[in-house]
Amino acid sequence: MSEFKQADHKLLVIPGPIEFSDPVLLANATPGTAHTSPAFIPVFGESLKLLRKVLESTEESGSQPILIAGSGTLGWDAVGVNLVQRGDEVVVLNTGYFGDSFAECLEIYGAKVNQVKAEVGDIPSDDAIIKALSSKPKVITITHVDTSTGVLSPAAHIASLVKKHSPDTLIVLDAVCSVASEEIKFDEWGLDVVISATQKGLGVPPGLSVVLASKRAVEVSEKLTPQGYYISWKKWIPIMKNYEAGKPSYFATPPVQLVYALNTSLKSITSKPISERVEAHKAASKYVKDELSAIGLDFVPKNRDIAANGMTAVRFPQGLKAPDVLPKLAERDIVVAAGLHKAIVTEYFRIGHMGVTAVDRQRGDLEKVINGIKEVLGKNKD
Amino acid sequence: MSEFKQADHKLLVIPGPIEFSDPVLLANATPGTAHTSPAFIPVFGESLKLLRKVLESTEESGSQPILIAGSGTLGWDAVGVNLVQRGDEVVVLNTGYFGDSFAECLEIYGAKVNQVKAEVGDIPSDDAIIKALSSKPKVITITHVDTSTGVLSPAAHIASLVKKHSPDTLIVLDAVCSVASEEIKFDEWGLDVVISATQKGLGVPPGLSVVLASKRAVEVSEKLTPQGYYISWKKWIPIMKNYEAGKPSYFATPPVQLVYALNTSLKSITSKPISERVEAHKAASKYVKDELSAIGLDFVPKNRDIAANGMTAVRFPQGLKAPDVLPKLAERDIVVAAGLHKAIVTEYFRIGHMGVTAVDRQRGDLEKVINGIKEVLGKNKD
Repeated sequence: MSEFKQADHKLLVIPGPIEFSDPVLLANATPGTAHTSPAFIPVFGESLKLLRKVLESTEESGSQPILIAGSGTLGWDAVGVNLVQRGDEVVVLNTGYFGDSFAECLEIYGAKVNQVKAEVGDIPSDDAIIKALSSKPKVITITHVDTSTGVLSPAAHIASLVKKHSPDTLIVLDAVCSVASEEIKFDEWGLDVVISATQKGLGVPPGLSVVLASKRAVEVSEKLTPQGYYISWKKWIPIMKNYEAGKPSYFATPPVQLVYALNTSLKSITSKPISERVEAHKAASKYVKDELSAIGLDFVPKNRDIAANGMTAVRFPQGLKAPDVLPKLAERDIVVAAGLHKAIVTEYFRIGHMGVTAVDRQRGDLEKVINGIKEVLGKNKD
Repeated sequence: MSEFKQADHKLLVIPGPIEFSDPVLLANATPGTAHTSPAFIPVFGESLKLLRKVLESTEESGSQPILIAGSGTLGWDAVGVNLVQRGDEVVVLNTGYFGDSFAECLEIYGAKVNQVKAEVGDIPSDDAIIKALSSKPKVITITHVDTSTGVLSPAAHIASLVKKHSPDTLIVLDAVCSVASEEIKFDEWGLDVVISATQKGLGVPPGLSVVLASKRAVEVSEKLTPQGYYISWKKWIPIMKNYEAGKPSYFATPPVQLVYALNTSLKSITSKPISERVEAHKAASKYVKDELSAIGLDFVPKNRDIAANGMTAVRFPQGLKAPDVLPKLAERDIVVAAGLHKAIVTEYFRIGHMGVTAVDRQRGDLEKVINGIKEVLGKNKD
């Protein structure tokens, strides 16, 4: 399907959006189709079911997938609108830029936010988390992968701390940059909300907010007056239940083509055990990090155990900055991302290795990136 | 580009989503592209400028286009979040389902809503509007085309009443089903906010919330604390200004492929005077309504002067309901929409004639619809 490749298309290896497969792009060009049509309803319904599968959840658990036109950020507002009331205490575990922003969002909805901040490149200590839980907050948020630092939070471990020290606290995982690239066991870990978007591990163009809410989270939302309209779960959950049951239903028009694209990607992702996909991302990450280590580069995360598998935040060699490196990579048709975290913004850059780039290694995307970096840094002659 | 036509694609003639042109669908399949890339920034920037042009506004007026991932409904929340504070008085002119819903949305944001309701198929009287304006509300909303009734509100006339009787009142036009199909003169009429979406007259897959705000509306929003995060204009306007100025900028990831698709459609739309496009929709509407009148059908709008040009709400012949007609049209690969307005839901159906269906008459879409209806109703032998 080379007709979809723009002549000037460059390899996109930022921490999202990522490279999309041709079948996904073709699905995004589905002709005009009614959001209530017999053609579309089963596609939407199946996508909801497959999303549960990717997150290792089950219908029996009562978990509720919610797909709404929007970006990943809309998921933060969904938490504020549907789970927070003025004065509610929320603990935000902060591993970078996205913790700051999530906290700012929740404060707009009246949350009393207690941020537990890690040093740049690190994660909050168990002691700090346990201390924050002592006040029994209503909600705790975890940024699974903060794309500003490339730090991977140990979500399963943190969830176990919450279950032990404050079991009524709702656990919200900001998984924008981890769904379908990092391990997430929604039911087993006892998560309450997973927030994501399509343009990262799910491998679908941006424009869909992806949420999975636990039965417990849905019950909490049902008792509140939502603080917004467009992302009110009271409005959307009946619609999602209808789509999943194969019935036409309308609240606001879903992004039909993006749902076709998501369905295509979800079917591909779930055609193999999700654990295989996670392993493929670990292998891709190991390749990238080993190669960059071998040429003497350092990483933003303090150690490999807390480094994301879907992206790498790598420090420039001493004396170099983004303008010395990124334009030269772009000349080689390789698009990486500049720094984002204010404290170190000029000191590092970011490489995404999610979706087809990580899983379909025959594409050679990773070798292209590594060779490009070696060339630009003059390390290709070793 | 017949490879984009699904084998089972049916002609989509509902009041949105509509049929999309092949170049627009191709643009929606643009490969993964960074939202901050030199490839994408000018495409986004140009789309903002062209949107102003479609709405007959100018940069000199200080009007601000805002494109965010979301559906048309998100625009209602944008008004609630950015222009309303608790206790503010808002007048909602109600010509159907979408007036009820807009009112419900604004009440969530604390607006004291005064609904001026028309009879089904009619518009509010001048006297009723003038009376509602006597309390000098902060905002008045007009549903330009209520797709539940097919009623077209005389927006220019209503705006002139507001200018005369309560000039400080902000005029919000819900133009989801009228942008690029009905006449809208943003600057000349003195509108403050136009809300729309991509899947109707703009001819682009659903998933983008489209807003144009006047300088005056932006100034009002700047003095408020926004009641949300994702659709805060304080967050987005600097981003939009940067895109328009050709600079990379990030708040939340825009739906890159949809912006390419919108850009493709906007360039096509603005390649001719917008008045020609409006006339084409009037001609399409006249053809449909004349043909349906000729076989004895009646319409929901009380007269042609207040009937939309982008859609037709038509009553079933006595004794027939949706299950007697719509499935038989679907068998003929024609998808129209059932009724939506509760008071008359079983009594009528809706035909969309926007975008390529109205403008590219060589497609023969309208003839196919009319012939299909005649066949199904047994009126093809006259």
